[in-house]
Amino acid sequence: MVAIAAVSLLFAISCTPAVNNVSSYAEDRAQIEDLQARYLFALDFFDMDTYVSTFTEDGILDIIAYQAKGRAEIRKKLEESRPVFNPASQKKPGLYPPTGRHNITNIVLKIDGDKAVGRSYWFHYGNNNPQRAAALDGYGHYEDEMVKVNGKWLFSKRKIYNEGVEKWIAPSKNPSW
Amino acid sequence: MVAIAAVSLLFAISCTPAVNNVSSYAEDRAQIEDLQARYLFALDFFDMDTYVSTFTEDGILDIIAYQAKGRAEIRKKLEESRPVFNPASQKKPGLYPPTGRHNITNIVLKIDGDKAVGRSYWFHYGNNNPQRAAALDGYGHYEDEMVKVNGKWLFSKRKIYNEGVEKWIAPSKNPSW
Amino acid sequence: MVAIAAVSLLFAISCTPAVNNVSSYAEDRAQIEDLQARYLFALDFFDMDTYVSTFTEDGILDIIAYQAKGRAEIRKKLEESRPVFNPASQKKPGLYPPTGRHNITNIVLKIDGDKAVGRSYWFHYGNNNPQRAAALDGYGHYEDEMVKVNGKWLFSKRKIYNEGVEKWIAPSKNPSW
Repeated sequence: MVAIAAVSLLFAISCTPAVNNVSSYAEDRAQIEDLQARYLFALDFFDMDTYVSTFTEDGILDIIAYQAKGRAEIRKKLEESRPVFNPASQKKPGLYPPTGRHNITNIVLKIDGDKAVGRSYWFHYGNNNPQRAAALDGYGHYEDEMVKVNGKWLFSKRKIYNEGVEKWIAPSKNPSW
Repeated sequence: MVAIAAVSLLFAISCTPAVNNVSSYAEDRAQIEDLQARYLFALDFFDMDTYVSTFTEDGILDIIAYQAKGRAEIRKKLEESRPVFNPASQKKPGLYPPTGRHNITNIVLKIDGDKAVGRSYWFHYGNNNPQRAAALDGYGHYEDEMVKVNGKWLFSKRKIYNEGVEKWIAPSKNPSW
Repeated sequence: MVAIAAVSLLFAISCTPAVNNVSSYAEDRAQIEDLQARYLFALDFFDMDTYVSTFTEDGILDIIAYQAKGRAEIRKKLEESRPVFNPASQKKPGLYPPTGRHNITNIVLKIDGDKAVGRSYWFHYGNNNPQRAAALDGYGHYEDEMVKVNGKWLFSKRKIYNEGVEKWIAPSKNPSW
């Protein structure tokens, strides 16, 4: 009897954390989708503190043109390219500040414990023109490696392919599975 | 023994509902993503019954140009702007009806029990031109408050920023976190 | 006492599998979103083995212009339209290969056990022009039927509406709910 009750209790207790536990495919995917979206808000609104915090301490941002390692170096590279990533810094007289927005779609995720690999599409539009007209101006795809650190998913590596520059385009083979 | 078995039973019972319960981050996020998508189908296909049903009874739609409160007022405002939201009403002789489509991406969600706040991007394309050619024509972002009423997530407030009109553009600070 | 402990054990055991089980709305939706994304990578990168494997053995691809049934016929139809779906096959002298990308947004899903129905938007952009400039060039919506076979979600039917050709456009009624 004691054994039965004990085993029962064990099952019950081992089950209870599952309610709040973040370890199913859906739970991990939900957290990673949120990470992906927060990354893009931070990028487009030039919130560099939040942006670098989506990477691990030694995370890698690889845009083929350069590979930055660690939050400090990633921030430095982003600051250098501020005019490109933050069109508001290019305000023209008589016009309100333009904006640019990166979007993510088609998120493929393979998750194994505290590690995940991802493939997804990105595209960018903006209105940095005299009419402030919406215009699509770039696209490519992401190849990501993510890790769960203290219960939070972070990028350990993001590689960005860009179909707008010959040296940065994707190989022709399907990068997904 | 009785105490052990009772506690055990308590754990087991409190655990069981979790299987079907919709209260983890992933479960709530999945329901909210579905809400977001149904909202846009209803908007673009001008299904006003479904559209207003995505709001709480006293929900608020704030597009900065106006703030409508409650389903009746929201419907009235949408009906008034039908030509804009429903290009099919602008059919031209010799051409098939044009369409317009709003899309949502980059969904950031913070969920706390029966309340949630969201940030996301929207963009719009359509073919209301003589060639029926696809054209991107607008974008902005959403700031949402949602509540779970009788197990269903609804918008209690949706505020819409639009980068195409100076008065409706987003502040420069990252609206996400 | 034995009865209480036994019932308790029963609850606990019936609960435990739920941790890894893939049968909640979020778990199924997460798997289906992954399927949707893998389908598009396979299409755009012309990985026909992966593409046809997203359909059931007797799955149907209905693009209104034709209806292909079964993986062999679907593959045959896709191979025939390779120049359209795979702009890289249209490489021009002095230019790097163009690419085209289909994107999915606004995914609405109703899931009932091992069956699901879906509605979603698609749009396409590419750079098959001398400037390799990103250009939006088409959009429409998907109406999907999916089934879970041996724990894996697959398309049993995908119907594709396309707003670029009069015969393929969507009826005006909201196809969602």
